[in-house]
Amino acid sequence: MADKKLVEAITSMDTDFAQWYTDVVKKAELIDYTSVKGCMVLKPAGYAIWENIQKQLDSMFKETGVENVYLPMFIPESLLQKEKDHVEGFAPEVAWVTHGGLNPLQERLCVRPTSETLFCDFYKNEIQSYRDLPKVYNQWCSVVRWEKETRPFLRSREFLWQEGHTAHATAEDAEARTVQMLNVYARFLEEYLAIPVIKGQKTEKEKFAGAEATYTIEALMHDGKALQSGTSHNFGDGFAKAFGIQYTDKDNTLKYVHQTSWGMTTRLIGAIIMVHGDDSGLVLPPAIAPTQVMIIPIQQHKEGVLEKAAELSEKLGNFRVKVDDSDKSPGWKFSEQEMRGIPIRVEIGPKDIAANKCVICRRDTREKIEVSIDELESKVGEVLETMQKEMLERARAHREEHTYVARNFDEFTKIFEEKSGFVKAMWCGDQACEDTIKEKLAVTSRCMPFEQEQLSDVCVCCGKPAKKMVYWGKAY
Amino acid sequence: MADKKLVEAITSMDTDFAQWYTDVVKKAELIDYTSVKGCMVLKPAGYAIWENIQKQLDSMFKETGVENVYLPMFIPESLLQKEKDHVEGFAPEVAWVTHGGLNPLQERLCVRPTSETLFCDFYKNEIQSYRDLPKVYNQWCSVVRWEKETRPFLRSREFLWQEGHTAHATAEDAEARTVQMLNVYARFLEEYLAIPVIKGQKTEKEKFAGAEATYTIEALMHDGKALQSGTSHNFGDGFAKAFGIQYTDKDNTLKYVHQTSWGMTTRLIGAIIMVHGDDSGLVLPPAIAPTQVMIIPIQQHKEGVLEKAAELSEKLGNFRVKVDDSDKSPGWKFSEQEMRGIPIRVEIGPKDIAANKCVICRRDTREKIEVSIDELESKVGEVLETMQKEMLERARAHREEHTYVARNFDEFTKIFEEKSGFVKAMWCGDQACEDTIKEKLAVTSRCMPFEQEQLSDVCVCCGKPAKKMVYWGKAY
Repeated sequence: MADKKLVEAITSMDTDFAQWYTDVVKKAELIDYTSVKGCMVLKPAGYAIWENIQKQLDSMFKETGVENVYLPMFIPESLLQKEKDHVEGFAPEVAWVTHGGLNPLQERLCVRPTSETLFCDFYKNEIQSYRDLPKVYNQWCSVVRWEKETRPFLRSREFLWQEGHTAHATAEDAEARTVQMLNVYARFLEEYLAIPVIKGQKTEKEKFAGAEATYTIEALMHDGKALQSGTSHNFGDGFAKAFGIQYTDKDNTLKYVHQTSWGMTTRLIGAIIMVHGDDSGLVLPPAIAPTQVMIIPIQQHKEGVLEKAAELSEKLGNFRVKVDDSDKSPGWKFSEQEMRGIPIRVEIGPKDIAANKCVICRRDTREKIEVSIDELESKVGEVLETMQKEMLERARAHREEHTYVARNFDEFTKIFEEKSGFVKAMWCGDQACEDTIKEKLAVTSRCMPFEQEQLSDVCVCCGKPAKKMVYWGKAY
Repeated sequence: MADKKLVEAITSMDTDFAQWYTDVVKKAELIDYTSVKGCMVLKPAGYAIWENIQKQLDSMFKETGVENVYLPMFIPESLLQKEKDHVEGFAPEVAWVTHGGLNPLQERLCVRPTSETLFCDFYKNEIQSYRDLPKVYNQWCSVVRWEKETRPFLRSREFLWQEGHTAHATAEDAEARTVQMLNVYARFLEEYLAIPVIKGQKTEKEKFAGAEATYTIEALMHDGKALQSGTSHNFGDGFAKAFGIQYTDKDNTLKYVHQTSWGMTTRLIGAIIMVHGDDSGLVLPPAIAPTQVMIIPIQQHKEGVLEKAAELSEKLGNFRVKVDDSDKSPGWKFSEQEMRGIPIRVEIGPKDIAANKCVICRRDTREKIEVSIDELESKVGEVLETMQKEMLERARAHREEHTYVARNFDEFTKIFEEKSGFVKAMWCGDQACEDTIKEKLAVTSRCMPFEQEQLSDVCVCCGKPAKKMVYWGKAY
């Protein structure tokens, strides 16, 4: 049995989801708070998840021809100001460096909140000819946004992310890359994080500062709130015109490039917690779990137990496996393994050894399976695979159960009074209706999904002819 | 034959080493300058070297029990000031953030120049009991030091690095970790970068701000100047006392922890260039080269040539291989492959195909080897291995040839007037002599090597009894 004390240290999800979340990030030892307001420490258990995300995503990027680079963390104020929508969007929330050493700077520098302007400044010199295109660059770094309210992983003043920035010869190439990267993101979430997503386009109101079009993947958390989990932007030639990024085409004429950018952040760790977690803590999808199997010896002081645990660890060398041979009680170790979301626990004690067997316990379902030691490796592989698959299925079922349809404002209102989730509803395309909906129901348009349905002919808000079906929800 | 134009674009090493270096970093497309003074762009070819360094070093770290974390990039001024030697060392060269969004901050934040103070602030809460020790954490990040003069890779206002920070129960454990990591660094440089190093201790004058002891690896560049290539610091309990990091030991008494830190930076890329490069550009050690083999088709418009090049690429799938099938001339491609330091070029044309052979050309020696296509894979493996080994041997021979002994000040002066390299000389241990030597000869003590020799009984400067043999040199 798991020890109750550690479990009792966290609030139940149903009692207070926000508190549950905060408790889990702390008790699963993912983060710690710091003396720097709004900034956190990513502790080993938290950072290791990010490392796995990074490793997998980076290899998926590279398969599509992405090359990594690193650009400075500082942006001169004059550079940030070159694209007017962009500066309006970001200037209010950047940190400003005004002194270098003991001297005031001639021009202040902001710490990058995102690097479009730096990439444009770089591309302006790099790109001369059609032969220099496309440029498909990405960087892994941290960025800073001076948020007032912060929450671990979901919104912090500094966070880790990747930002891809590309330049293309034609509008079609840029559009294709924007969609391609959104698809990479969606596939990554489904296959590795076991999180199903809605792919779609942001409305004008919700799109990125300076973009022509923003595509997004939206995921539904356990509490029915939406989390924007990755975005991909098509800038058209707007930045190219503001920065003068031109190339000589094959026909010897000067043309502006077309650009995109796309990013995902440590926020994904928040998504994993809020989609899969339970009242015992974190539940990590096997594909991304830093430790997939924790072997816990029972009565480890008895002869041969620790040796057998080490032998099992060896046997499971194809997985990410650890033995907890600390001097804590087995119950406490069980609770820790559960709190940290390690997918499989293997229990091995003197009686098991005598019978040449051990017990596998699945983190998500708590199912216990007695297995012969000879079959341990294949069984563990099988359980990890099943768990990965079923976690995605459960998350998808949860989303389906919490996705509603509203055909008029009364229905719309009633759903958000009684329930929490995605609401599909038709929209006329006017920002005024988005504003009204936000004001009255405190929900925002999450996206206009690529897979459109004709739910009715009229806007859920104003009753005028509808143009698009939109997913609405309360967002993190 | 390689095309002369690209080669002519760089200055010869013997004419002007500094200009040669600058030309190579630019023409090998490792970096680009930016609108942010003193900060550079790491372009794909440059960043890929760093990725390989990172990957290898990270796995060597993890083998010794290191765990990765991520701490904030900002340090509140009051935190930086807690350890007095440390703040004196760093305050003059940090960048200060004074505004967040539209508002002035209550307390200014510096952008981390290094993170000892943040780790201490973190450890203060993390460490309570002897069970919490040791902590062996590392982070990969960028840091900022507001340097006046900058040079690509060697000294820039922002640079990428790793910084390890550990806390231990005893002084012995801290000392052992300090030495262990220095040995990891030395092994990494020799085995992967093919750069031999001198391991030793920095003098009081040259040690890290706040450290009890700083260990260093020093490498000799082609021009005879020294490059400090990695350092490992033992802090004793100095920081622990300044920050109040105590633990309850097994005997139930409160004790201060003992700490270390150690770091290596993108400066290593500068070392690779300056140790191995030649007048045709970069020469990359195979173990770290992002591309190990470049296949260059000759008369690629002829039937079957590009197909054969692709087939060879497939055959060489165990290596990091690329085909240059761009529409440039073969001569230009040769020059580019040489400029970029790609260890092996494989030339394949219609005549080769007819004879079932191809030509391998080694970047370092220019040796051309005709090889049957059936034996290509094994031959490439063999050549890469030989090249890696011989690059280290050549670098070691160069260092031996440029390491001198001075027994008195006249000899000392004469060597630095006529030659350039390491000078071994005895030292009394007084900083006054170090100051005199620096003033008169413009050289600094590089380290007191672990492998001491008794060259004479007296200090090379003052003639008083000698305590240590020291390596002296002009440093980057």
